[in-house]
Amino acid sequence: MDAVVLRENGTPRLVDRPRPDPGPGEALVRIDRVGIDGTDREVLDGAHGDVEESMVLGHEAVGTVAEPNGTGLETDETVVPTVRRPPGAYNEYFRRGEPDMAPMDATVECGIDGADGFMAEYVAVPSEYLVPLPDRLAPYGFLVEPLSITAKALELASASREPFTWDRDRALVLGTGSLGLLTVPVLAEQFDAVYCLGRRDRDDPGVELAIEAGATYVDSRETPVDEIPEAHAPMDLVVEATGHPPHAVESVAALAPNGVAALLGVPEAQTTEVDLGAFHRELVLGNRAMVGSVNAGYTHFERAIEWLDAMPASVRSAFTEHVYPVEQFEAALDSDVIKAAVEIGP
Amino acid sequence: MDAVVLRENGTPRLVDRPRPDPGPGEALVRIDRVGIDGTDREVLDGAHGDVEESMVLGHEAVGTVAEPNGTGLETDETVVPTVRRPPGAYNEYFRRGEPDMAPMDATVECGIDGADGFMAEYVAVPSEYLVPLPDRLAPYGFLVEPLSITAKALELASASREPFTWDRDRALVLGTGSLGLLTVPVLAEQFDAVYCLGRRDRDDPGVELAIEAGATYVDSRETPVDEIPEAHAPMDLVVEATGHPPHAVESVAALAPNGVAALLGVPEAQTTEVDLGAFHRELVLGNRAMVGSVNAGYTHFERAIEWLDAMPASVRSAFTEHVYPVEQFEAALDSDVIKAAVEIGP
Repeated sequence: MDAVVLRENGTPRLVDRPRPDPGPGEALVRIDRVGIDGTDREVLDGAHGDVEESMVLGHEAVGTVAEPNGTGLETDETVVPTVRRPPGAYNEYFRRGEPDMAPMDATVECGIDGADGFMAEYVAVPSEYLVPLPDRLAPYGFLVEPLSITAKALELASASREPFTWDRDRALVLGTGSLGLLTVPVLAEQFDAVYCLGRRDRDDPGVELAIEAGATYVDSRETPVDEIPEAHAPMDLVVEATGHPPHAVESVAALAPNGVAALLGVPEAQTTEVDLGAFHRELVLGNRAMVGSVNAGYTHFERAIEWLDAMPASVRSAFTEHVYPVEQFEAALDSDVIKAAVEIGP
Repeated sequence: MDAVVLRENGTPRLVDRPRPDPGPGEALVRIDRVGIDGTDREVLDGAHGDVEESMVLGHEAVGTVAEPNGTGLETDETVVPTVRRPPGAYNEYFRRGEPDMAPMDATVECGIDGADGFMAEYVAVPSEYLVPLPDRLAPYGFLVEPLSITAKALELASASREPFTWDRDRALVLGTGSLGLLTVPVLAEQFDAVYCLGRRDRDDPGVELAIEAGATYVDSRETPVDEIPEAHAPMDLVVEATGHPPHAVESVAALAPNGVAALLGVPEAQTTEVDLGAFHRELVLGNRAMVGSVNAGYTHFERAIEWLDAMPASVRSAFTEHVYPVEQFEAALDSDVIKAAVEIGP
């Protein structure tokens, strides 16, 4: 029996399915844990792809190799699958090893749009999409995919500042969701000071975690993004991890000269009155930049694994306190904890 | 007698001044030609610094060394001065050799804000701010400073795309002013196809030059920026060289996935209704980026000289057809030609 959490007509269901047979180049992976994030909820709400289509959920997974099937992987090796697959035939982005740079119509995304995800007892995965993980990190392995999103965003942001001496004094994370909170300890290693903005009370577990991970908490109900330079200090980096539409423009107002805003959240349409002249002028006269980033490639997964390994144990553990057995997948999808995951493996 | 074009109480005047004595580390430079651009007109309109302050105009200059004064430069060597100087004492940006990255309050700009410019028979310039130019390029030397602006912007734009394989298929220049027109032949060397957007008729000399330099002309009265992908093709690079406030947001709509918009124009305030959700989403899901860029450093002047040397002679000459004797400086400041300059030297 294979436990599979499937979206059918927009509703998640636990069903039986036959164990997949790995094809040439594919390994059979037994899934241990799958993390839940806002994207999974958007998938159920129909914000990605065809909500009527039947699809296995889950894109943040960790598992172990059950059958290497001649791929060079080893039995029982811990692995994390990447998310993007070619839509039928390989295209230039996959040939280059840069599927994360494919336009949306040149890729499918496992568990998000167009391809089955990982919330199943077994999955067959081409070995080029499996990133090995040290066994000791297996319980935390479902955090690698979200951390890879941060890894790619920081790579793009840093590259944009590479031609000159970029001061890494202060960084700001917008959002206290799991992606924002995972980003805080990473930036705390790289910047002198880290700030985290949210709209929760200070005794919220997420806010407490942000502070434990090294951030100064900024309550957006008291201090909006564009007032942060005056209330605290201008920022060399802003990481937007909410998808709140005004944040793109407000981020630039929070930046120090020569700073960069990395945008990760995916907003809905929202029309607003904005002083585009001021926005444009701040970008130009302050040599500021803005980079959008989606998905992540193999090397970003590898960097995420290094970061996960280096993360303070107490911070890392806070992300694995809410692991639900697969039978309770609905509670996991509905929960409002720091990070929820589903346990499928034995 | 030294001819000097001075701004006094907002009005340009030609006056006599004693020849400056170069201090330690300074060379005496005899100025040959000084280009005019939109910034000079803004300076007279009071958009930069204190319009009541008396200041020598001009920031796009070429000259020859009259007295090396022990700097290592040679008598009669052709040189182009850079624009930024420390505001009193050196600060970290000048110590690093990155004055172009200084915030606006950590620099002055010759002929723009806080320091005398180059529209004078002789100027004394620290040798570290003098970039040598091959003598054969002397007649075109006043084009080096504006080309250096493009050099820095393209460096920042390229750096932001460095982590992945950036297709350099199509580039778009917004604006048919002298900066936009100078950028067209540079991009024509680097991209398969170049487009140039303006709001002039096709028989305008600037439009004809853009076409001669290799661009497809786009009349913004027929095709607005955000309709260019449909009317022509999506762009891998957009260079904004007008300062029209809506261009920052519209540029992103003109970009192909993985494209970057480089902003150079300096707009005034303008409040507009914008779909910030769509803007933000396009940046994220298409891995798009936006870089602001102001001023340029020594290495950008050097790159600009290489570009000027490589530019087709017929295109390069089109920028030097309107050189006015210094006595006609008012006609030069008022003219609406492709590029105006003032000739001061013998």
